This record gives sequence, structure tokens and C-alpha cells, in this order.
Amino acid sequence: MDTEVQETYQEKAIMQLQADADKIAQLIKVQMDHLTMPQCPLYEEVLDTQMYGLSREIDFAVKLGLIERERGKNILSVLEKEMNILHELSIKK
Amino acid sequence: MDTEVQETYQEKAIMQLQADADKIAQLIKVQMDHLTMPQCPLYEEVLDTQMYGLSREIDFAVKLGLIERERGKNILSVLEKEMNILHELSIKK
Repeated sequence: MDTEVQETYQEKAIMQLQADADKIAQLIKVQMDHLTMPQCPLYEEVLDTQMYGLSREIDFAVKLGLIERERGKNILSVLEKEMNILHELSIKK
Repeated sequence: MDTEVQETYQEKAIMQLQADADKIAQLIKVQMDHLTMPQCPLYEEVLDTQMYGLSREIDFAVKLGLIERERGKNILSVLEKEMNILHELSIKK
């Protein structure tokens, strides 16, 4: 395979996945900033749905050989850690 | 871009998306074959979740330029038609 073209698709893939991960991180941040406000019970479901969607994109990219499995796992685990912090904070509230 | 390499990724993408669509079609078929049996209320939710996952994969592939938007829409609309038939059959039951 032509290395340059391969990299173009791989770069596009990682940029798109990171952009989608950033959107979820932003959702988490917004929710953290509003912990003192009346809680919306749907936010966990929204976050779960978004996480599932991102994991499907990552699986797809891994299967096509656009990103390494480890890299994909890292994107998800960073978000999972943030979600856990959010979850603990909202229990303590 | 090198046309040959581009096609390799595009072919991989369409094959993977079609394989995932086939899995959903299979789920729908299994459910149709069991319409006379006690219905599992979760099947619609399972199908919705799978459809959402597939739509995220398709969006991702479209954004990367791996498949055309129309082609992606077609994959989803074929499945949606089958789901509608299934839904109508299960109401009449």
C-alpha cells in the first residue's frame, strides 16, 4: 500500500474519533459544572449512548486497519475515567 | 491520492458496513420467524441500538470519504423497511 495515502486515511480517522471523543468530554464537563443544579436523570443515558456510538466507530476503524486497537481503547478509557469521576461526584452531592 | 489504495479502504469499508447490516437483517429475520412465540419486549430496543451503532459507523465512513452518503442511506433504509414490516406484523399478531 502507498504509505502516504494510507496515512491520510489514518490521520482522518484519528482526527474524527478524537473530535467525537471531545464532544463526549464536553458533555461530561457540562454535567460536572451543573452538579449543584437539579439533576437531569437522562444525562447518564445520553452519555452511555454517545459512548456506545464512539465505541462502534472505533471498532470499525480498527477492523479497517485505520487505527491500532490500543489507541482506540485509550480514547475510550480516558472518557470512562472522567465518567467515573462524574458518577462519584453526583452520588456524593 | 493513489486510486488503488483508496479503493482498498473503500472496499473494506463497504464490506464491513454490509456485514454489520446483514447481522441486523438476521436479527430481524429471527424475530419474524418467532412472531407466534411469546414476544421478547427487548427486541425492539436491541434492534434500535444496533441500528444506531450502524448509523454511527456509516456517518464515520462518510466523513472519511470512504463511502458516498447516498450509499450509506440506502443500507439503513433497507433495514428500516424490514423493521417496519416486522413492527406491523407484530401489531397484527
